[in-house]
Formats: sequence, C-alpha cells, structure tokens
Amino acid sequence: MSSPLNIGIAGLGTVGTGVLRLLTEKPALLAERSGRRLQVTAVAARDRHRDRGIAIAGYRWHDDPVGLARDPGVDVVVELIGGSDGPARALCEAAIAAGKPVVTANKALLALHGTALALAAEAKGLSLGFEAAVAGGIPIVKALREGLAANSFTRVFGILNGTCNYILTQMQETRRDFNAVLAEAQSLGYAEADPSFDVDGVDAAHKLTLLTSLAFNCPVDFAAVYVEGIRHVSALDIAYADDLGYRIKLLAIARQTPHGIEQRVQPCMIDADSPIAHVDGVFNAVVAEGDFVDRTMFSGRGAGAGPTASAVVADLLDIAAGRKAPTFGVPATALRPLAHSPMQRHVGPYYVRLMVSDRPGVIADVAAVLRDQKISIESLLQRGRAAPGQAVPVVMITHEAEEAAMVRALSQIGKLSAVMEPPRMIRIEQL
Amino acid sequence: MSSPLNIGIAGLGTVGTGVLRLLTEKPALLAERSGRRLQVTAVAARDRHRDRGIAIAGYRWHDDPVGLARDPGVDVVVELIGGSDGPARALCEAAIAAGKPVVTANKALLALHGTALALAAEAKGLSLGFEAAVAGGIPIVKALREGLAANSFTRVFGILNGTCNYILTQMQETRRDFNAVLAEAQSLGYAEADPSFDVDGVDAAHKLTLLTSLAFNCPVDFAAVYVEGIRHVSALDIAYADDLGYRIKLLAIARQTPHGIEQRVQPCMIDADSPIAHVDGVFNAVVAEGDFVDRTMFSGRGAGAGPTASAVVADLLDIAAGRKAPTFGVPATALRPLAHSPMQRHVGPYYVRLMVSDRPGVIADVAAVLRDQKISIESLLQRGRAAPGQAVPVVMITHEAEEAAMVRALSQIGKLSAVMEPPRMIRIEQL
Repeated sequence: MSSPLNIGIAGLGTVGTGVLRLLTEKPALLAERSGRRLQVTAVAARDRHRDRGIAIAGYRWHDDPVGLARDPGVDVVVELIGGSDGPARALCEAAIAAGKPVVTANKALLALHGTALALAAEAKGLSLGFEAAVAGGIPIVKALREGLAANSFTRVFGILNGTCNYILTQMQETRRDFNAVLAEAQSLGYAEADPSFDVDGVDAAHKLTLLTSLAFNCPVDFAAVYVEGIRHVSALDIAYADDLGYRIKLLAIARQTPHGIEQRVQPCMIDADSPIAHVDGVFNAVVAEGDFVDRTMFSGRGAGAGPTASAVVADLLDIAAGRKAPTFGVPATALRPLAHSPMQRHVGPYYVRLMVSDRPGVIADVAAVLRDQKISIESLLQRGRAAPGQAVPVVMITHEAEEAAMVRALSQIGKLSAVMEPPRMIRIEQL
Repeated sequence: MSSPLNIGIAGLGTVGTGVLRLLTEKPALLAERSGRRLQVTAVAARDRHRDRGIAIAGYRWHDDPVGLARDPGVDVVVELIGGSDGPARALCEAAIAAGKPVVTANKALLALHGTALALAAEAKGLSLGFEAAVAGGIPIVKALREGLAANSFTRVFGILNGTCNYILTQMQETRRDFNAVLAEAQSLGYAEADPSFDVDGVDAAHKLTLLTSLAFNCPVDFAAVYVEGIRHVSALDIAYADDLGYRIKLLAIARQTPHGIEQRVQPCMIDADSPIAHVDGVFNAVVAEGDFVDRTMFSGRGAGAGPTASAVVADLLDIAAGRKAPTFGVPATALRPLAHSPMQRHVGPYYVRLMVSDRPGVIADVAAVLRDQKISIESLLQRGRAAPGQAVPVVMITHEAEEAAMVRALSQIGKLSAVMEPPRMIRIEQL
C-alpha cells in the first residue's frame, strides 16, 4: 500500500465534523477501496474551543486557513468554510498555488469563480473536486463527468434545494400556504432564519451553474441563470396542479435550445406520474438527458452532514487512488462560452390562474387577449360560482407558447376590469 | 494529446453496432473528455457480410475473437458476444493474458466467473469494465465503486430487468393478465420468443450478483441468489396492490441481515408513493442505502443499443484517461466471502390472497393457522359475496414474519377445505 494521504480540513461546522467522523470511523474500508490510508493531519476553523462532539486535539490547528494550505504536512485541502469570496477563495487559491488538490462543497465559490479555479488547478495537474457542491450525497458530478461522458446532453434539470422541496411537499400534503409552512420549517431547523438564499432560488441557481458547465462544457456563468423562487406558490395553485395531474417543484433547468443554452430556476409543474414528481421532502434529484443514454435520474439527500461527507470523501478517495478527470468534464482551457437563451425566448406550455368576477364575457375577453398573442388554450377550468362581486378562479393550461408573448398577454389580462388579482403563471416542464 | 486508444470489438449485434456508431459519431468530444482519441481498429463477429447499417470494412476482421484479443493493433478489448462461457469467456481470458484491459456487457459471464476474471486482470494491473452489465445506461457500477465508496451499504436493490418491468407496467395499466401482456410484448419485440431468461428472473439475478459484490465487497456468488419470476403475478393481485397503496415490481435485493447477506429476485409490493414505484416500462432503477449517504436512487434505460453503448464507452473513456478502480470496489484479492442468509430466514411483511368459499368460519380457521405460526395480521380485506360454491378473494397484509413460518402457514391454509385455490403470497419490501 502506498503512503498515506494527508488531509487538511478547513471549516469544522456540521459538514466538516461529518467528514472527520467518516474518515475516523472506517479507515480500513477507505484504505481498501482507494489503496491508501486517508488521514487528517491538520484542521482550521474559527473557534478552537467549541465542542463539536469529536476529538480534534490530535490534528495540527491553524487559525488561518491559508496557513493550512501551506502546511507541508497537508497533501490535499478540504474547503468547507463557505462563501463565494473571502477565506474560502483565499484558501483554494493558496492550496493550488502550493500544488495541492482541493476538495470543496462550496457552490457559491465555484458558481462565481469555478472557471478560474479550474484553470489554475489544471495548469498544475491538480484535481478540484466538488461532488458535494451540487446535490449533496448524489454522485452527479462523477456521473456527468465520467459515467455519462459518452453523451451529448440536451437537457439537465433537477430538484437542487432541499428546503424548497420540503416546503412544497408540506404544502402539497397539508394544503397550507407558503408562509405557514416556512415558519414551521424554520422552527424544525429545515429552513434558515433568513431563508431567502434557499426560497428565492439562489442556492439552486449556484448548483445549476455547475451542472450546466458539466453537461455543456462551457465556463460557469451564474449571471445567465434566470432565478425565481417559491414565495408566490399558493395553496390554491398546488390544489389545481393536483387536480390537473401535476406536481409543483422548484426545478433548476439547463436546456439546449435553438437560441443557445437556457438556464432557469423556477417553480414548475411536472407530470404527477413521473419519478421526479415523487422526490419529496428534503430529497434532491437530477435528471440528465443524453443522446445515447436517453433519460437518467439520480436522487438522494442533497444536504446534511452524512450525505455531504459521503461526497467529500468520494472526492478524496479519487485523489488517493490517483483517478483524475477535468474539473468540468473537459480541460478548463477547452471550455467554450455558449450563447445563452434569455427567459423571454423560453417556449413551453403554461398554467395560468386568474381570479375573475363571475359575469358573462370574461372568458371571451381573456381568450381574445391570448389569441392576439398567438397563445392557444389546451384546457380551461372554472369551478363553482361566486356571489356578485366575489372572485372565482379560472385556470387555463396553454399549448406551447413563448415567454415574451405570455408576459404580454398576462399584462393585458391583468388590466381587464373583471380580473380582480394579478394573474398567476407557472411554467409546465414537459418530460 | 497522448496516442490514440486502439479498440477491438467482438460481437456486432445491436449493442456492438451501437458502440461503433457512438465511437464514430463524436470522436472530437470523446477525445476532449478523455485526453485521447478512441479509435476502433479491429472487429470480430460471426458473419462478415451481414448488413449492420454501418460500415465495418475499415476495421481489421477476425473470425476468431481470440485472434482479436491477440491482435497487436488492439489496446483494449470490448466483449459483446454474450453467454457465460464459450467464446466470450475465451476472449476475456485471452485479452487479459495478452495484457489488455477488457470492457464487457456480459452479466452472465461475470456472475459466474467474475471473481476469477477480476483476479487475473488485477494481477496484471488491468481494468475489467462492466458498467453495461448491470443496469444498461445507468452508471451504477461507477456510483457504487467510486461515487458512494465512502459508505458501508446496508441494502442495494433495484428493478434490473426491463422486460419484466414493461410487462408489470402494462398489467398495471391495462389490468390484463400476464400471458396476454407477454404475448403482446413478444410481438412488439420487448420480450424474446423464449422469455424465460427474463420473466423467470435469471437475468436480474445475474445483475444482482454483480451489485452484491460491488456493495458488499464479496466474491460473486450467483448460486446464493433466491430467484422467483413474474409468471404467477395475476391481474387480481395487481388490482389489490393498487387498492392497498402498493405497486408490484420485480425487485432484485441484496441486504445485510443479522444472518448474513440476503440475495433475492422476486415480485415485491412497494409503497405506491415511492419514487421507484414510478419507474415504469422498460426503465431500470437501483436504490443504494449507505450509512452516510442514506438512500440514493439511480434510474434510466436498462437495455438497448444507445444506453448500453453509453455505458461501454464510459468504461473506454476511463481506460483512455488512465482512471482505474478495482473491479468490485476493493482489490479482488481482498474480496471476502460473506455468510449468506437463506430465503427461509427472510423477515418482512407479506401480502396473502386466498380464494375461499364464502361461508362462516373460514376467516377464523385461517387466522388460527397464522396465530399458530406467530404471524400477526395487519389488515384483512374481503370484498363482495360469492354465490354458494363460488370462490371469493380474501386478502391479508401481515406484520413482519419469517419466511419459513409463512411457508408453513400457507401450506396448512392451502389444505383447508374452504380454500379453493393455492394461496398466493407476495413479499412487501419496506422502503
């Protein structure tokens, strides 16, 4: 057996201690599977004295993560600090400068600086592992980069944020509204006190940026992602989705279109009979569609100490075993910028819900607006009757339409005197 | 870029021509992703003149696959002949003897001779790739061997035969009986003229043998798999499963139990709300449960030229890029035989259906037998009433019971005078 792989871990929060626990719990299994012993030699964190429920006295301590990167007793650096800049970035840059491979779970860092870091690492022949950064325990980075590497991809999409999926699942199951479920999720620790990073789609967008580069071999381009969160998803829309044979999920989608790559994070309706519609609670899933393999799906826990540690250590095992792959599937120098298709050019079917006063002619007015925008209605649903002056929901599913036309139509429909609330629209993702 | 990887392909059926097509369609992409050009230099097949819809005149022809293995212009051998012995085995052994890595889609060969072939290959430092042998396009071998390698597994199971899943899905959707659906599947080309290899569970058992070795790092042991096919699944049982919130799937399951590893292929009832219950038609899926990652699921097409070629070429890309992993996750010399737990010791809940004559006291008699075998009933369903002398179905779900006790109970129940047909039993797999 070769010499041990000496590991330095920066950041000892939930994930960092999970990685430490995994590495110390089963050294023999890991050595057998990789051919080398994996041993932690040094750690860096903010507070040396915090009780983490795990002994850290045996590891060399660094107050400064950059010091850990330069520690001659460290062969590989694990970055679990978080944040797109600051100490996390400095640590990764220092490790690469010192000729050491890096393993990170940091989606924000890579979504913004992934291409630069990959270029730097690959110029020195170093691995930059980020399995833990996309979908927690699901080995989707390896799947796209190696397992499915014979394919040209047409679409990659997934449920990439467990908090949103938990909230939408709870809304589906209990028929409560977003705010009530969010408050409960916060009290249970499934959502942060400031939930905007999750519920507004930013976290999923970071992850989508990485998936897009892996699938389409283009530089990371976070700014090109259209992002919409789940705050405006209502219990009423969830109930209608159910009636119509759909489920609402926050999807992150990268798709090849005639106008370029479309990247978007948004609540979507999907066929309730599809496997991904049944990926519930905090679980994540990624669907990859390739020209030879057709559709594949990968699901599992997208966060948490155990699953994230599983992914971090998988990257370490690759490094220990000497297995290398280019960071984003092709050498970073070969990543080619692709045209990106803006949201206005998106084409697909739509779900539209209007709250209208129940009087003759309303549907005719709405239908005329849609006709003028060349949007055709596949089905229309009006349930119950309202007392005069009361709003009644009218729900429509359209055939494929262009986003720009839909936005214009909804703007005009919103101005009709019989339409009593701003129209709600949810995109339908076809599987 | 390094020198090209020279590939010899033996077997030019559907999969072989699919691999040829993939390799010739996108040489630039494959070279970019692996760092080497992948080029086919030689082929071997039975009939040189058959029209395969693809030009093969440019490749050196071998009538004898062993000749292909020894061809100095071949660096790596792709075995797509099939069959557990004969030319396929001779080819793989000759390739390894000649110091060449092997990629194969041959589950029967590996289920019987996998350990010996792995020992021979690894003794020479050669890869033995078999991604295409387990679940077609789904990169589950790589996932277990690398992506999830930080985990100790407790259970790995899946839908591993597309023909069976297609038949069961059709039975579910159309409520027809097995024979009618099988005949249709045969006419559509989804089932063979002699379907026993698929519908009797042998194919799934071969694949399960490989999954078990990957997950539990033990030698292949096909003889240890308990195998039951889907011929006895009836439309009536499918309808009851639906009513009770289950779906019936042919599952292949390897599980760690207190008595050792349990390996079984059998129709099972699973929660209709679980993602794997919605893996329909010819799709396959594998669920892996690890101590750190928890439950992960992988689904996709388990057969067909495109998906199988995707998996074969993924193995070739690993070889081209110099990425190596031990065949079954740990060095073949370190594979340890594990105790295997026989079917009689299986513990789980059961679905039981009896056809009884509708007269007082029948349920009491049945319940007494179950009580004597210490099997407790969770729910009991009797629908409708029959005319005198006519049979009426009685359906029971039991709490967890041991297989041996259940077999004894069913034998006694079958002898009760009011029980008019042999009892049907389907195991419930808890997720």
